[in-house]
Amino acid sequence: MTYEERMKMILEAYKNGEIDAAAVLEKIQNAGCEDMGFANIDHARSFRQGFPEVVYCEGKTPEQNAAIMASLARNHDNLLGTRADMQIYQAVKEQVRDAVYHEMARLITVERKPLPKDGARKIAVITAGTSDMPVAEEAAITAEVMGNKVERIYDIGVAGIHRLFGRLETIREANALIVIAGMEGALASVVGGLVAKPVIAVPTSAGYGANFEGLSALLGMLNSCAAGVAVVNINNGFGAGRMASIINHMR
Amino acid sequence: MTYEERMKMILEAYKNGEIDAAAVLEKIQNAGCEDMGFANIDHARSFRQGFPEVVYCEGKTPEQNAAIMASLARNHDNLLGTRADMQIYQAVKEQVRDAVYHEMARLITVERKPLPKDGARKIAVITAGTSDMPVAEEAAITAEVMGNKVERIYDIGVAGIHRLFGRLETIREANALIVIAGMEGALASVVGGLVAKPVIAVPTSAGYGANFEGLSALLGMLNSCAAGVAVVNINNGFGAGRMASIINHMR
Amino acid sequence: MTYEERMKMILEAYKNGEIDAAAVLEKIQNAGCEDMGFANIDHARSFRQGFPEVVYCEGKTPEQNAAIMASLARNHDNLLGTRADMQIYQAVKEQVRDAVYHEMARLITVERKPLPKDGARKIAVITAGTSDMPVAEEAAITAEVMGNKVERIYDIGVAGIHRLFGRLETIREANALIVIAGMEGALASVVGGLVAKPVIAVPTSAGYGANFEGLSALLGMLNSCAAGVAVVNINNGFGAGRMASIINHMR
Amino acid sequence: MTYEERMKMILEAYKNGEIDAAAVLEKIQNAGCEDMGFANIDHARSFRQGFPEVVYCEGKTPEQNAAIMASLARNHDNLLGTRADMQIYQAVKEQVRDAVYHEMARLITVERKPLPKDGARKIAVITAGTSDMPVAEEAAITAEVMGNKVERIYDIGVAGIHRLFGRLETIREANALIVIAGMEGALASVVGGLVAKPVIAVPTSAGYGANFEGLSALLGMLNSCAAGVAVVNINNGFGAGRMASIINHMR
Amino acid sequence: MTYEERMKMILEAYKNGEIDAAAVLEKIQNAGCEDMGFANIDHARSFRQGFPEVVYCEGKTPEQNAAIMASLARNHDNLLGTRADMQIYQAVKEQVRDAVYHEMARLITVERKPLPKDGARKIAVITAGTSDMPVAEEAAITAEVMGNKVERIYDIGVAGIHRLFGRLETIREANALIVIAGMEGALASVVGGLVAKPVIAVPTSAGYGANFEGLSALLGMLNSCAAGVAVVNINNGFGAGRMASIINHMR
Amino acid sequence: MTYEERMKMILEAYKNGEIDAAAVLEKIQNAGCEDMGFANIDHARSFRQGFPEVVYCEGKTPEQNAAIMASLARNHDNLLGTRADMQIYQAVKEQVRDAVYHEMARLITVERKPLPKDGARKIAVITAGTSDMPVAEEAAITAEVMGNKVERIYDIGVAGIHRLFGRLETIREANALIVIAGMEGALASVVGGLVAKPVIAVPTSAGYGANFEGLSALLGMLNSCAAGVAVVNINNGFGAGRMASIINHMR
Amino acid sequence: MTYEERMKMILEAYKNGEIDAAAVLEKIQNAGCEDMGFANIDHARSFRQGFPEVVYCEGKTPEQNAAIMASLARNHDNLLGTRADMQIYQAVKEQVRDAVYHEMARLITVERKPLPKDGARKIAVITAGTSDMPVAEEAAITAEVMGNKVERIYDIGVAGIHRLFGRLETIREANALIVIAGMEGALASVVGGLVAKPVIAVPTSAGYGANFEGLSALLGMLNSCAAGVAVVNINNGFGAGRMASIINHMR
Amino acid sequence: MTYEERMKMILEAYKNGEIDAAAVLEKIQNAGCEDMGFANIDHARSFRQGFPEVVYCEGKTPEQNAAIMASLARNHDNLLGTRADMQIYQAVKEQVRDAVYHEMARLITVERKPLPKDGARKIAVITAGTSDMPVAEEAAITAEVMGNKVERIYDIGVAGIHRLFGRLETIREANALIVIAGMEGALASVVGGLVAKPVIAVPTSAGYGANFEGLSALLGMLNSCAAGVAVVNINNGFGAGRMASIINHMR
Repeated sequence: MTYEERMKMILEAYKNGEIDAAAVLEKIQNAGCEDMGFANIDHARSFRQGFPEVVYCEGKTPEQNAAIMASLARNHDNLLGTRADMQIYQAVKEQVRDAVYHEMARLITVERKPLPKDGARKIAVITAGTSDMPVAEEAAITAEVMGNKVERIYDIGVAGIHRLFGRLETIREANALIVIAGMEGALASVVGGLVAKPVIAVPTSAGYGANFEGLSALLGMLNSCAAGVAVVNINNGFGAGRMASIINHMR
Repeated sequence: MTYEERMKMILEAYKNGEIDAAAVLEKIQNAGCEDMGFANIDHARSFRQGFPEVVYCEGKTPEQNAAIMASLARNHDNLLGTRADMQIYQAVKEQVRDAVYHEMARLITVERKPLPKDGARKIAVITAGTSDMPVAEEAAITAEVMGNKVERIYDIGVAGIHRLFGRLETIREANALIVIAGMEGALASVVGGLVAKPVIAVPTSAGYGANFEGLSALLGMLNSCAAGVAVVNINNGFGAGRMASIINHMR
Repeated sequence: MTYEERMKMILEAYKNGEIDAAAVLEKIQNAGCEDMGFANIDHARSFRQGFPEVVYCEGKTPEQNAAIMASLARNHDNLLGTRADMQIYQAVKEQVRDAVYHEMARLITVERKPLPKDGARKIAVITAGTSDMPVAEEAAITAEVMGNKVERIYDIGVAGIHRLFGRLETIREANALIVIAGMEGALASVVGGLVAKPVIAVPTSAGYGANFEGLSALLGMLNSCAAGVAVVNINNGFGAGRMASIINHMR
Repeated sequence: MTYEERMKMILEAYKNGEIDAAAVLEKIQNAGCEDMGFANIDHARSFRQGFPEVVYCEGKTPEQNAAIMASLARNHDNLLGTRADMQIYQAVKEQVRDAVYHEMARLITVERKPLPKDGARKIAVITAGTSDMPVAEEAAITAEVMGNKVERIYDIGVAGIHRLFGRLETIREANALIVIAGMEGALASVVGGLVAKPVIAVPTSAGYGANFEGLSALLGMLNSCAAGVAVVNINNGFGAGRMASIINHMR
Repeated sequence: MTYEERMKMILEAYKNGEIDAAAVLEKIQNAGCEDMGFANIDHARSFRQGFPEVVYCEGKTPEQNAAIMASLARNHDNLLGTRADMQIYQAVKEQVRDAVYHEMARLITVERKPLPKDGARKIAVITAGTSDMPVAEEAAITAEVMGNKVERIYDIGVAGIHRLFGRLETIREANALIVIAGMEGALASVVGGLVAKPVIAVPTSAGYGANFEGLSALLGMLNSCAAGVAVVNINNGFGAGRMASIINHMR
Repeated sequence: MTYEERMKMILEAYKNGEIDAAAVLEKIQNAGCEDMGFANIDHARSFRQGFPEVVYCEGKTPEQNAAIMASLARNHDNLLGTRADMQIYQAVKEQVRDAVYHEMARLITVERKPLPKDGARKIAVITAGTSDMPVAEEAAITAEVMGNKVERIYDIGVAGIHRLFGRLETIREANALIVIAGMEGALASVVGGLVAKPVIAVPTSAGYGANFEGLSALLGMLNSCAAGVAVVNINNGFGAGRMASIINHMR
Repeated sequence: MTYEERMKMILEAYKNGEIDAAAVLEKIQNAGCEDMGFANIDHARSFRQGFPEVVYCEGKTPEQNAAIMASLARNHDNLLGTRADMQIYQAVKEQVRDAVYHEMARLITVERKPLPKDGARKIAVITAGTSDMPVAEEAAITAEVMGNKVERIYDIGVAGIHRLFGRLETIREANALIVIAGMEGALASVVGGLVAKPVIAVPTSAGYGANFEGLSALLGMLNSCAAGVAVVNINNGFGAGRMASIINHMR
Repeated sequence: MTYEERMKMILEAYKNGEIDAAAVLEKIQNAGCEDMGFANIDHARSFRQGFPEVVYCEGKTPEQNAAIMASLARNHDNLLGTRADMQIYQAVKEQVRDAVYHEMARLITVERKPLPKDGARKIAVITAGTSDMPVAEEAAITAEVMGNKVERIYDIGVAGIHRLFGRLETIREANALIVIAGMEGALASVVGGLVAKPVIAVPTSAGYGANFEGLSALLGMLNSCAAGVAVVNINNGFGAGRMASIINHMR
């Protein structure tokens, strides 16, 4: 029984005088949540946001992750777990047999009923360098699982800007762009100045010294002189993939 | 004669042997720019990005701003100048008689042929507090000038969260959301958790002490636990309005 | 012989002319301390603050910790050691046989005469996510050892805010609240806006990128737009538990 | 008609079939709010938190402040506005004739039915130096308006620590303490080590050079080696007064 | 009598036994300096570095600046004073009648015997925006006074990158490049990737919000992915002009 | 009657049974303090530290400063007030007729019985540049008032290091050194490497851009590769003068 | 076939009508790049910058590095890989048999046709301490591979400044200087004040505590009071070597 | 042959015409240094500063450290190496048989002719907590090796301030004080306010969360409201010991 069905039942019960007003408020708010003590699973999220709750695996024990993923897997067809290491994956795999691990992206996915993808509306995932690839794969696979066609365009940073121009047509065909760069993060400004599509910029911690773990790219992207650029957290490939997917599904 | 027409002429001239390869490259790159010495106006931007170059007025003298706006006004119907004080506006007004000043937003606009607005696709501009209003107006008017219907929802920050719930239906009807908050910037996370639309978050410098001129809201928004949130620079209402407009015009 | 008894004896001796004024000052100040060279144990603290000196184990060798805990155990019935790893616990256990280890919370406790708990005055320990649980357990067990009934409410962060509303009644019943969150720390503001009880906010280092080891949550909580929120150090579950206990024992 | 009365009426109307479920949710959430366009007044806050919404005046125009205060004054007997300069006060005074201005504290108060004060339960407001006095007065008057007896103990910083010991008895008699200090903020640790009462520490920006506008005191207080200390934002006298008042009213 | 002449005299005197070893060390070190109490003018610098000591006017009183410039003017033909406001200039002008003021650049120059300029070795001064112009003029005039031909190329930032390509030939003809940009400072990386000449990058404080007074451009430039880029202090046009001049005079 | 005399009286009274133990503790701690409400003057400080309490004037009103200085002037012969502007001085002068103002140093002094100075034990106050002079004068006059002979050596920064060598003999004759520098603060390391005397380093906020209000000099001095260097707060000439005086009076 | 040859072929084809204008733009931009999916090798860089693309090995897998180096080795005679650990070197060595590893500098070099070195134009690489040596070797070997004679002058920091003076003649003979220092980075200022040659300053993370991973040296060097100093990223020996090489090859 | 003897010989040779002026300058500057390629040993330092060059072992290989210590051991009787781990010590021990290792302090010492200690002039080394002990031992042993009597007073932090008062007499007897504290570093202010002796404050990285690796204690100590406090780098026990020794040897 889904969240929506349960909610209607509760309101009916009140109308019929079976429960009083205070009970209504309490029940509605409890519906859709499954409290496991250490975690409070938000099953209703798929109704609010079009995809079930995504599990951020880091900082949870393998056992906690496995229990959460198992509960979600009982209620939903497609799942995503982020920042998962191999040990977490193995614990999850015990309980969710069709879970798949993407090592570079550190993602766990389940896709029983893959979401349909509109081939004419692509998301381009662009990186400045090869070192940005783990973040890029996190973004790309996130977007794919959420039902998007993804074009990967890697290692075209501004130190050799003609590489970017060589791919410009492909970039312009995309419906939404994710630009991923470390160091000074200049690629976001250059791409943002060349296209009229929304650019989601992801700073990475690639680099050293005064990049201060991604701060240089973060500040660079926030201060982009190009309009149409918005920024997510350092190394947050998932957040960029999610945001681009939301935009790409607008009609 | 527009940028596109000029570009075709140049390529024809090369094909006919009137100019050589080196000349082609030089000419194509010069086309569309007007070098005024202190400024290099990018007339081609309207073709690349759907709106003429927006003038960032701060840091330029009133005379420089007036000359730039006048040049743009000769080539385009709709214009936008940001971060303009009254003195700059007066200098611009001398040269561009139909320029309008929006004092709270510090914007100068010209709208000879207002862009059409699709009433069914609204952008909601939401603020946590009254102090965030100048930034909100910058975002809202930017979006309006660029052809969007805008819904203003002000002062519904999380200290009294039922104010937000009271406006939830309106918020959910919007096609794209701009959430503007200072202090801890928590409103972006709360809104992002409630809707499945893209949220452009704008941290403001409203607050004091350890808000460090907007840093607290900026970090809060970048670290939002809700997906579907991307961030622009502190107080950057224009950037948010532009980004939301690009998203809102996607089909 | 306790600190108070010793102090009275000293003043008597002066009054009787057995010692002079300079000696009084010196003796009073020495009373209650046990100088072990590497540590100066403050036995008097239980009189000043209602609980013996709590040992911060990190940065001390296992041997130092064991010696300090042994000395305290000879003088007091209930003890607490924080930030203890397994190796430290084992050294302590050698000397204090009834010491108990709480692995997730990294606490060592001794409770020979557990302090009484008033079941009508609960402290609620609330977390935004599962990753905040070690800090939450540190807070909860600290509060319990110090004689408080604790309600644990975990993983109700603002990305799915109805989870919070589902527990609101329980939250409102509590006498004091500890709100623990990483990332943007928004939960403290939301809870602070909903209840009229004191909220002790604990930022955690959960998150990544621009959370800068907990700085984002710290700044978010310090800048909370809700009144009735005060903040302790990043990951400082002990400090929050102690503060909430002091408040909860007020009459 | 108060918020509670209105809420009951709405639920009755639903029960009687006069309105449907969707309407209930919308109405409940709107009740208690007054949307003035630029501000969304939260009249219900007095029910949730025991005192009407406090107006943070900075960043609002004098006209906006006056309109907000006037609306609140029509619905409540006691009011507080913070960070108000003289110009704001004058605009408010036009509309709220019984408003009083406290210049050093930059507060506007209205007290038609002063809240009762329990003389046996005092809040001590302690400062390290004379320069911390404006913040201290903000805290003290806030606490007084909210119905607390306040003891002011100023300029007893640790550079001459016997001044503190000279006032120790008075400090220990207090039920809750607010400790206000700039520079290194050491006073909070010293006081926290001497008493078993909750200490609300307020860092101030008093000092220069590497105090970085209050950062040194803020970090000092957050890292206090004494338990029972929690911190509010730099210069946030209001927040400390509010927090201490909540604690002081617990029974 | 110049520094070199004086130094030889001193060594002669020692050889002839007129002064002893201790005196030699003292005299050599004193030669070339003129101690005015508040300033210690380094007349020898023109021998060590090819141009007399440049006066950093900010933080000195108009009278101090005038006295220093007057002393230098008695000993040298060409002078430079930086960060001078109009009031300082007027005090200097009283004493050094041929001093010239450059308002936008805030420079005072004296050029009695202008240094020769090699027209075939140009320094290009490039800015991202019009707001960077005061810094650019400081760099350009510094380079000119020190004997360099300067090409100004302003407002070709990466938001409209074809403006840069339109000037690429001119840029490539230069012998050394100064690239000046605020916001994200991306222009330095793009230029550095396109030319094989030394690029001196100058971050400016142009921008707002998270540019943190030039920090974003500074970090961006330090982390440039292009080789051949070195950075000077924020807004330090003088330093860039001096550095470029030294490089441009190498043979 | 001085603090020492008062303290003896109190202990006598206890011995004679006139007061009880609790009273002793209270009285001793109160003795020596004069509580003016807004200030708590520490008259005993002259006994503990050899000079009366120094008044930090900034952040106090002119009236508060005048009242404090007047009280001190009634009890002591020599006084010092720091960070005083002209308006404060005028209020003080009204009440303390023999107060003298040092404008550049922003100090107020009273010297009725100047402390003796040992001419053979000098403190050298050394600056890197002319802009550091206000801080230097604050240090120098502080040291003089506290009974030290001071040698001023200004503007010998490392950009022209022979200026330093020209004064090396004088520097080496000093008993203690105060080195004051902004920008990179390198002078402290160079001096510290050349002498075997204690060096008190004072970073100043002289400079611009990435000096971040003195942070660069502060970090430079803290990281000095020379031993025998300790640092005081940015621009804290008083602290350096006080520290050097304490050292210089050691025997 | 080189990039230049390919480019000419493309333009010929267009002139002959074999391809249209759109194809020209696409082809020119693609030429010179080799897209390996994870990397986009910029073979044209040797034409733009006089040395093939330098591989930044960190953050790439050993396999990726080996594939990139192998591709470059097929097209160029001399190669450089930076930040390579032994594992990466071994993977590269498998594919590029003449690759050489420099352990301290963490560089991989291939020098089949070593570039000629002008013995009269030396680059001096100077360090403050022995701990700066890995960075210095990275700079020195980079400069050597790129065709420069290098003079190494190590461990002459300012704590014993006569060590610097003992090497001054050698330093002054150099054509360009690289100054490498951690801690306070003062050596750059001292050297910059003594010579009239361009100084490339490299801050290192050598030191501890408030050096904050190289920040102290970075700020120190950026704020250098000596002219003729420009700075590269913390520990960026490669960047300094490359910059000095560019300068040293100017005529 | 010592530095002084060599220097006299050089000047004699010049006087006798055996060498010319240029040679004098070169020779004097070379004397006293031993260039080992990777290190440039400053043998003259013992003449300038009363103790041979102290070796900072971190960042140097065991072999480099051993070679440097061996060279120093051939020229001097007493040595000190700091930040040495066991592996470095073993390499040194191979070459310098009488080297002694102090594990907690991470120091290597050689004391063939221990410097005399004046028992009447003690240095007190005071810590706030047990965790500060490694830094304290570094300071204490440094001071002892340099010829000072040291009094250790550990774990008397302000959370239990009577522990400090219990040791006050001992503290006041000392001639110079080193105060070592992490967390908020308040102990320096309290001690500085109680004694009239120079206080060298050492912030440590003991603590967690918002102590940011010692930043909180560093800022706290720099902003100390007590005069007579100067600060060295975080965890810099050696620097404090050296500074206190210099002060303690003043007469």
